[in-house]
Amino acid sequence: MKKLFLLFSLSLFLACNTSAEKETKTNQTTETEKAQDSVGNFGIVIHGGAGTILKENMSDSLENAYKAKLEEAVRTGHEILANGGTAIEAVQRTINIMENSPLFNAGKGAVFTNEGKNELDASIMDGQTLNAGAVSGVTTVKNPINLAWEVMENSEHVMLSGKGAEQFARERDLEIVDPEYFYTENRFKSLERLKERNSEKTELDHDGKTAFVDPFIKDSKFGTVGCAALDKNGNLAAGTSTGGMTNKKWGRIGDAPIIGAGTYANNKTAAISATGWGEFFIRGVVAYDISALMEYKKMSLAEAAKEVIQNKNPDLGGSGGIIAIDHQGNVSMEFNTAGMYRAKMNKSGELEIGIYSKL
Amino acid sequence: MKKLFLLFSLSLFLACNTSAEKETKTNQTTETEKAQDSVGNFGIVIHGGAGTILKENMSDSLENAYKAKLEEAVRTGHEILANGGTAIEAVQRTINIMENSPLFNAGKGAVFTNEGKNELDASIMDGQTLNAGAVSGVTTVKNPINLAWEVMENSEHVMLSGKGAEQFARERDLEIVDPEYFYTENRFKSLERLKERNSEKTELDHDGKTAFVDPFIKDSKFGTVGCAALDKNGNLAAGTSTGGMTNKKWGRIGDAPIIGAGTYANNKTAAISATGWGEFFIRGVVAYDISALMEYKKMSLAEAAKEVIQNKNPDLGGSGGIIAIDHQGNVSMEFNTAGMYRAKMNKSGELEIGIYSKL
Repeated sequence: MKKLFLLFSLSLFLACNTSAEKETKTNQTTETEKAQDSVGNFGIVIHGGAGTILKENMSDSLENAYKAKLEEAVRTGHEILANGGTAIEAVQRTINIMENSPLFNAGKGAVFTNEGKNELDASIMDGQTLNAGAVSGVTTVKNPINLAWEVMENSEHVMLSGKGAEQFARERDLEIVDPEYFYTENRFKSLERLKERNSEKTELDHDGKTAFVDPFIKDSKFGTVGCAALDKNGNLAAGTSTGGMTNKKWGRIGDAPIIGAGTYANNKTAAISATGWGEFFIRGVVAYDISALMEYKKMSLAEAAKEVIQNKNPDLGGSGGIIAIDHQGNVSMEFNTAGMYRAKMNKSGELEIGIYSKL
Repeated sequence: MKKLFLLFSLSLFLACNTSAEKETKTNQTTETEKAQDSVGNFGIVIHGGAGTILKENMSDSLENAYKAKLEEAVRTGHEILANGGTAIEAVQRTINIMENSPLFNAGKGAVFTNEGKNELDASIMDGQTLNAGAVSGVTTVKNPINLAWEVMENSEHVMLSGKGAEQFARERDLEIVDPEYFYTENRFKSLERLKERNSEKTELDHDGKTAFVDPFIKDSKFGTVGCAALDKNGNLAAGTSTGGMTNKKWGRIGDAPIIGAGTYANNKTAAISATGWGEFFIRGVVAYDISALMEYKKMSLAEAAKEVIQNKNPDLGGSGGIIAIDHQGNVSMEFNTAGMYRAKMNKSGELEIGIYSKL
């Protein structure tokens, strides 16, 4: 059923792309014609985390709140792209909207570590230059994706961490907040509940079929925000931002700040942002693997994303999903969990928002 | 000339692999026969960093010290493999020898950060299970590769960082040392010299042709130790350990603890450890890219390593090298710098040690 839905979504999106001016074309479109078609094309796709998201556990008002925020986010990036802005800028500003909302496990809504702190990770990559920036374990930076961007643009480094990354954030005049800013009652209760259940256990049992009564508990392992965009100049970019895993210990770093695992962008192939059980996404080098399958095995984005998310990732024992857009504007929103908060908009402004695997 | 040398090395190693019992074989060896040939085969390869290593800057006694330590390290792993030990164990113990020596930028010989501290990173990966472990920014763990192994074997995580990683190290009863242990006069002088040259600049100018008078200064950006091994059961493993970059700031994390960038192992393809200008190795997802070229484009290890290190990495602006061994025991020691400390031993016990690009 999930596959049918994805197939349907993809067909819908491809159908949207086949707009009026292309109707007279024959089926014998050459590669050159395809390339010409994609000039000026643009699109954007986002996720707000994947996991055990079931309709029966979600109130109508909460569902509407998620949908409204996803729409606000994707429209923000879409407007930037429509006005000729860069994919990198669209990715950053779109992620800012989700970081500033308590609904998602990133920025304001970040989950709590075992020590009751909020440690945030983020990464961003530019598909044109293959330049990238990433930060891990920051506790005072309001928008970690902006810090990742500063690392990419204004340092000789790709990845900064902890106190050092925060020092760099201050040097770059980024907005610094008191760690209290990241306190949200729901997330703190999630930590307390998780600690009560098993004071020694870092994570909940991993069972895709488990339906938690509290829609926030599912985020203990999952939940991250991400965005991938194609701009009118044919440049791709991707970014990911997260608060990590509820009750995490030992300075754990997941896939979100790892270039190649949680984020990857390359104009030759696609821009990809992942969300899921981070350990398996690191081991599978998930984001880059999708790009490599496209570049080396000539798979389409849809084929590569399906191979990695429906076959390789579950085979390893992992779960989660990705959102991606390729250099022609084709979009993938592939996940192997019960749900993934997601939205996409194409050049024509058609918007699609989804939460569960079944529409 | 470098290419000629590499070709020569490779021929030598391949020649060694073609031992007496294979002499009667025709050229029409089938894939099945090849697989059978590799049963019981084993081998090991190590690096101690790549960079501007020139003979004219190296005293005979220092050169001999490097060669002796490289030999001790590679023989340690080789003995484990010859006795039927696992590739993972061989990788770990071999790296321990180099971590415990002040000659290499890892463990005891780690370089100093801008704040005059030693922050160590390491990672390890098992090619059979695709399990992996990594640590970044530890300051009190004598052998970071052992901590990476503990993360892989005894936690649900892949990557731990900073104080949290050190707490985990204590919980796992690893050897903890005072940060003073990592003080070496040579490395501290390197930091002071670098700070004098340019108090604002994190790194030396990147120029492969520059010959530094002090053999330690070249390590400001480069230098890392690594090992890749194939055991008698056909399992591959790789590991990398480093002190990072002299004068590094802001909690910078390089490629060494990043699975897919500095370290990757997969029984289907090869085990790889990288050393070089870390930022470019992260952006190129170098270790996994070699594996992907082998798996998806059916390149040999030699072809894939050459493509990534001689073409893709320099095109991006990077420099450095890799050592790798594939599932059949073929070895690659590919680098695009003036030198790379390296050694390898095959099943027959043939040893090769190298420092410069010219023998």
